[in-house]
Amino acid sequence: MERAIGVIDSGVGGLTVVNEIMRQLPNEQIVYLGDTKRCPYGSREESEIKEFTYSMVREIMTYDLKMLVIACNTATAYTLKDLKQMLDIPVIGVIKPGSRAAISVTQTKKIGIIGTEATIKSRAYEYSLKEINSDLEVQRLACPSFVPMIESGDYLKMNTLEMIKEVLSPLTNNKMIDTLVLGCTHYPLIAGEIGEVLGEDIHIISSSGETAREMSVILDQRNLLSKDLISSHLFLMTGNKDNFKLVYENIFDNRLSNFADVEIKQIELKELEESYK
Amino acid sequence: MERAIGVIDSGVGGLTVVNEIMRQLPNEQIVYLGDTKRCPYGSREESEIKEFTYSMVREIMTYDLKMLVIACNTATAYTLKDLKQMLDIPVIGVIKPGSRAAISVTQTKKIGIIGTEATIKSRAYEYSLKEINSDLEVQRLACPSFVPMIESGDYLKMNTLEMIKEVLSPLTNNKMIDTLVLGCTHYPLIAGEIGEVLGEDIHIISSSGETAREMSVILDQRNLLSKDLISSHLFLMTGNKDNFKLVYENIFDNRLSNFADVEIKQIELKELEESYK
Repeated sequence: MERAIGVIDSGVGGLTVVNEIMRQLPNEQIVYLGDTKRCPYGSREESEIKEFTYSMVREIMTYDLKMLVIACNTATAYTLKDLKQMLDIPVIGVIKPGSRAAISVTQTKKIGIIGTEATIKSRAYEYSLKEINSDLEVQRLACPSFVPMIESGDYLKMNTLEMIKEVLSPLTNNKMIDTLVLGCTHYPLIAGEIGEVLGEDIHIISSSGETAREMSVILDQRNLLSKDLISSHLFLMTGNKDNFKLVYENIFDNRLSNFADVEIKQIELKELEESYK
Repeated sequence: MERAIGVIDSGVGGLTVVNEIMRQLPNEQIVYLGDTKRCPYGSREESEIKEFTYSMVREIMTYDLKMLVIACNTATAYTLKDLKQMLDIPVIGVIKPGSRAAISVTQTKKIGIIGTEATIKSRAYEYSLKEINSDLEVQRLACPSFVPMIESGDYLKMNTLEMIKEVLSPLTNNKMIDTLVLGCTHYPLIAGEIGEVLGEDIHIISSSGETAREMSVILDQRNLLSKDLISSHLFLMTGNKDNFKLVYENIFDNRLSNFADVEIKQIELKELEESYK
């Protein structure tokens, strides 16, 4: 059997990355772990974000993985550097891919970032963008109300347009930005509404799609691309199965049941020992 | 001084890749070598394409390089695999980046490739696309008249629209493709005209922009990104300086003279010894 790609996320947002992996890399088998019980991470302290993320890593590394994807911007901001050093498989986050895509499309060099409070506070996007090109203007905006709305599935039931418009209003001033990075893997689920609010002149970058693209580059460079169409995926979550399935079904529709053997399972994460924290 | 990125091409087409590197990776110093004297490669035999490319590689490797870019689809199709094994710096071609971008945007999974006769004959794009996703339909079309028109600078003087329309007519049938890869680094110079002929419903992928993007991923993974804004570039060519400068000025306008120290120099490539061929 081919080795799998591990994907971890604070909740259901990482499913937008999985969706893109399946589209762009259909030969790859996926093991997904979403910490839906403790989501959202984005309003937590750094120490907690690290502890929770590491407990997910410990669980998912019990599978035979060839690559680990931190499909959560908040977790990427606080743990990617350390995880890259700790693990002996390639580890990829979602911040660099979104940054690079923004750099490749912006014309005015004015880039906006929206994300959770923790992601915005970390300035991870700003550092990542300016490391590649110091000649950029970066506007940051925390949108703490978006993740709970998406994680609960409420975005499927209510008209979210007015709310999104109000939240994004600090960025919609005249020509302030020409590119907006959705700096949270939950946001692609409301990308249509965000696009409607921003209008056609602003490019919207989904870090989910860009991450799948960069995974392909890295797997390819290391000769790790799978050769055959896969047949099974595993989805693990720590919280209630029902909310997870609601979003899962919204994203994947019935596509998965057609060709792949899929298992969805609720699990409990072990507490980290004190020394590991 | 930071180590440079080497870029080789059969002629001036690779300048479209350089343009994208400068835009997306402004900190990187570039040494460019274009074999304008022997261009085009695209109508030559495999043995000659290899010989000419290797003689360029030998010349450019006399500079202190951290990465080599084969900015020519024809040369990539016939030499990338061998060069990756021969050289101890990362080597990147232009075929995989264009393929990956096409996979990430296509909705109908029907992708068209245009390129030189040799690139099309090699089926390199088809293999590269299907390696990642076997479930794609690929249409290939050789456009041998495009490179001479661009290399001579004629595309700047004449109305090329009718000619392009005629050449591309086999691909413009109803919904035959939804994505077209410009499988030759010369073609981005007439991308506007190609877009006009194809209409808005077909995505156009420039392998040049995508290659710069993937270079960023690989340099980043290996901690090779330059930290400071560079100050000099070197452009070498084997043929006449005047035609080169015509296209060069069309691409870079006066941007380069503003911030960078640029040298443009005509050189002669040494013949390869028999054993090297």
